[in-house]
Amino acid sequence: MNIGVLGTGMVGQAIAARLAGLGHEVMVGTRNVAETLARTAPDPMGNPPFSAWHQHNAQVKLGAFAEAAAHGELLFNCTGGGASLAALKLAGEANLNGKVLVDIANPLDFSQGMPPTLSIVNTDSLGEQLQRAFPQVKVVKTLNTMNAHLMVNPSQLAGGDHTVFVSGNDAAAKATVSELLQSFGWQDIIDLGDISTARGTEMLLPIWLRLFGALQKPMFNFKIVR
Amino acid sequence: MNIGVLGTGMVGQAIAARLAGLGHEVMVGTRNVAETLARTAPDPMGNPPFSAWHQHNAQVKLGAFAEAAAHGELLFNCTGGGASLAALKLAGEANLNGKVLVDIANPLDFSQGMPPTLSIVNTDSLGEQLQRAFPQVKVVKTLNTMNAHLMVNPSQLAGGDHTVFVSGNDAAAKATVSELLQSFGWQDIIDLGDISTARGTEMLLPIWLRLFGALQKPMFNFKIVR
Repeated sequence: MNIGVLGTGMVGQAIAARLAGLGHEVMVGTRNVAETLARTAPDPMGNPPFSAWHQHNAQVKLGAFAEAAAHGELLFNCTGGGASLAALKLAGEANLNGKVLVDIANPLDFSQGMPPTLSIVNTDSLGEQLQRAFPQVKVVKTLNTMNAHLMVNPSQLAGGDHTVFVSGNDAAAKATVSELLQSFGWQDIIDLGDISTARGTEMLLPIWLRLFGALQKPMFNFKIVR
Repeated sequence: MNIGVLGTGMVGQAIAARLAGLGHEVMVGTRNVAETLARTAPDPMGNPPFSAWHQHNAQVKLGAFAEAAAHGELLFNCTGGGASLAALKLAGEANLNGKVLVDIANPLDFSQGMPPTLSIVNTDSLGEQLQRAFPQVKVVKTLNTMNAHLMVNPSQLAGGDHTVFVSGNDAAAKATVSELLQSFGWQDIIDLGDISTARGTEMLLPIWLRLFGALQKPMFNFKIVR
């Protein structure tokens, strides 16, 4: 499938590499291609710059947000939560309409220091905000509740015996996304309901961040035992 | 141990019965003893009234909030989140000071309909609010992330292979509470850190409520796979 991945950070890199490895035609979208390629410093988390990653993933194309959105039959939002709405506007509504948008972003607010709080919370969610802004897009919130490496290769932890959630208004879009998740290795996919259930998964971030501190490692996940 | 359990609802009943069964001397506290005993109708969730429960748990004493607080060397807050601060004020600071208060309440706001939202969230928590209001009390937030029956008997689900969290500023208090949790059957107890980490566990409620809807049963829990 032709897939557009919006965002060049750790999440965008992990998703793009995995999709390309599964045989999809992937284009990563960024605000400014020249600036993205010119960065040589690691990001604040110590991850290598996009250009270094791209040397090992040359089959993945890089383009402006609008180019990547036009390329994709299905799109991933891997931008930061605070930048997602602006990125999607740059991608262009005409390039998004009618398509499935897999929204992985969390509306983290780092302005008050660590740990971050949520800038949208409780009575709304980023997933709903994006769905309202682009009513013709089929937003499916998922994968926003674990580390990027685990998103695309869940079997590296406990043989994949843990859970991923999907939220969205369109049943066919959720089925498409669930197939993609299964191709990543996900075995336990829980459909929480409509896009308003993204409130619940975005609100997992505060305990995720505290667990990261308590466990001293990012390779963990929630499993819903039932 | 002498233990005071504040709150006569489903959570207070489950906690009080379990503690009494383990040999503790339990007094349940309520706002108005006569009114509590006079209620004959089930609660809005269909649970039997306190008086019916009390017939099968006659070894548990019932008293006003202040009596139960004075009775307990250790206290459980099993009141509704919106009523907790008022209940603790009725219990009386002198009856609380120096003691461990196990806070199980969640600040659910039902005023906007179902599912409820949180009345305290993101940059604060009920656990922190109680700790600020009673600085000489050792507040430990725990057990607020699963069904009441599971709180006190975790082994009935997957042999107990799932997780409970503790948050609090006092290490000795958390150790005391963890021993009590182990006596309930809890095997996987994660210390998230100080009382501000209660934000994370209280913010699990929105996804808990959606999972309750998706799974159509309350007997499930989070396990942190790592």
